[in-house]
Amino acid sequence: MIKFNEKAPYAPVEYLYDVEEILYKGRSRFQEIIVIRNPYYGRMLLLDDVVQITERDEFFYHEMMTHIVMHSHPEPKKVVVIGGGDGGVVREVLKHKTVEKVFFVEIDEEVINVSRKFFPTVSAGMDDARVEIKIMDGADFVLNRKQADIDAVIIDSTDIIGFARSLFTTDFFNNVKNCLTKDGMFVTHTESLHFHKDIVIEIQEVLKKVFPVVDLYTAPIATYPGNWWAFAVASKNLSPREVRRRYDISTKYYSDEIHRQAFMPIGMYEKLMQRKLEW
Amino acid sequence: MIKFNEKAPYAPVEYLYDVEEILYKGRSRFQEIIVIRNPYYGRMLLLDDVVQITERDEFFYHEMMTHIVMHSHPEPKKVVVIGGGDGGVVREVLKHKTVEKVFFVEIDEEVINVSRKFFPTVSAGMDDARVEIKIMDGADFVLNRKQADIDAVIIDSTDIIGFARSLFTTDFFNNVKNCLTKDGMFVTHTESLHFHKDIVIEIQEVLKKVFPVVDLYTAPIATYPGNWWAFAVASKNLSPREVRRRYDISTKYYSDEIHRQAFMPIGMYEKLMQRKLEW
Repeated sequence: MIKFNEKAPYAPVEYLYDVEEILYKGRSRFQEIIVIRNPYYGRMLLLDDVVQITERDEFFYHEMMTHIVMHSHPEPKKVVVIGGGDGGVVREVLKHKTVEKVFFVEIDEEVINVSRKFFPTVSAGMDDARVEIKIMDGADFVLNRKQADIDAVIIDSTDIIGFARSLFTTDFFNNVKNCLTKDGMFVTHTESLHFHKDIVIEIQEVLKKVFPVVDLYTAPIATYPGNWWAFAVASKNLSPREVRRRYDISTKYYSDEIHRQAFMPIGMYEKLMQRKLEW
Repeated sequence: MIKFNEKAPYAPVEYLYDVEEILYKGRSRFQEIIVIRNPYYGRMLLLDDVVQITERDEFFYHEMMTHIVMHSHPEPKKVVVIGGGDGGVVREVLKHKTVEKVFFVEIDEEVINVSRKFFPTVSAGMDDARVEIKIMDGADFVLNRKQADIDAVIIDSTDIIGFARSLFTTDFFNNVKNCLTKDGMFVTHTESLHFHKDIVIEIQEVLKKVFPVVDLYTAPIATYPGNWWAFAVASKNLSPREVRRRYDISTKYYSDEIHRQAFMPIGMYEKLMQRKLEW
């Protein structure tokens, strides 16, 4: 069997996946884009040889990126999605009937094109009339936006290296904050709590310099090495732990129960931030 | 760099670990036993080429195997540990001052010997006066025990194939039940909720034929493929969700907060058992 050997950034273990077929191989201005088919996961999207999504389990990540902020906000109307060129987060955002506008800001148009062609169930929402696609750096989008009218900003970037780094600076977080309404919510993935605990802590610390409320939740994502995936969530005002809207959408993993349970327990969070969790 | 390629049973992904040194390689009557050193995980114990424990992260698994049942039981005195020849669960059990007796039942004496030599921090509890080591099949131990005087039975087996299969039958669970006091608790690992959902459900179903109370909790274990690890817990009477004793031991991951949060939410559990979780 042909194998794909994934050496994810910083991960102390490599993954080997069976490859039934290479469906696409190309290079954009930013990265190498590959689509393979695996007997278990179905189609898999690789960017610079790192697994981004698989047909089988993409919903874990996309639901958990999206629905925590969307349910803790009382009435999200305008949403910005930065990255996530596959369209999975946009699809999840559009499940919320309150949503009137989605700014879908992706730096690499080729990822969108490849997803339209090879991941139709993931990219399904891109042509919805509420979606405005912006091919640009997300850091520039929030820098240039002059109104504080956004209800939720969701960052679905690649690993925190290379060109994605601009989405993890104090300047960027300040610009995000300036776009948000008073009840606005922000979320970004922050790597694995097993393998990248220092990155998880660092991003919490940087966010705390900008936002009054900063918190952390996790989800089990089998295709990201370290698996126990951490998400940083921040707001000007409201706690993201509270579910403020009725859970009436269709999901496979997320639920209002999972919403409450996904957050790191308070005592454990304090130990984490004091760097007293030993692993 | 020399690599160890792990092809774990049923897992749709293989892992590759760097090997700095092969510290031990031998074959017992039951399995091949290898100890390697990895730059990140430190020493790693492999049985038939499957990672069992690593120095760096063994505590996640051993704490979560042990302390849920030990804290939901009001006063655990006599405990049976089946498998877990490395001694990690025994070490955790002994942290509880209520404990007077531990029957440590391991089929493969060689695993105990290798752990004593190469994993001294894991095997540390084996020589405690409260521990009685029994080199035998755990299925025979519970079959032959005629008193119902055990407070907790903990199964720390290898994957559910080969000789470990005898620890996952209705007969075995009935014999465990017959050993337990009225407040007695039983726990066993049941593979990954990502990769082996059918096994997780099946073991819940078999346990429900034997025990009035059956439940499910999870923990993130980076070195077991699928990572989102499921534990089946059962009792004659008491819910394992409740923490009935003061949390006054030293742990790295487990806490009374984690105890409550580790259980699958009720609505999600119902969907799982109705086979309505789709992945």
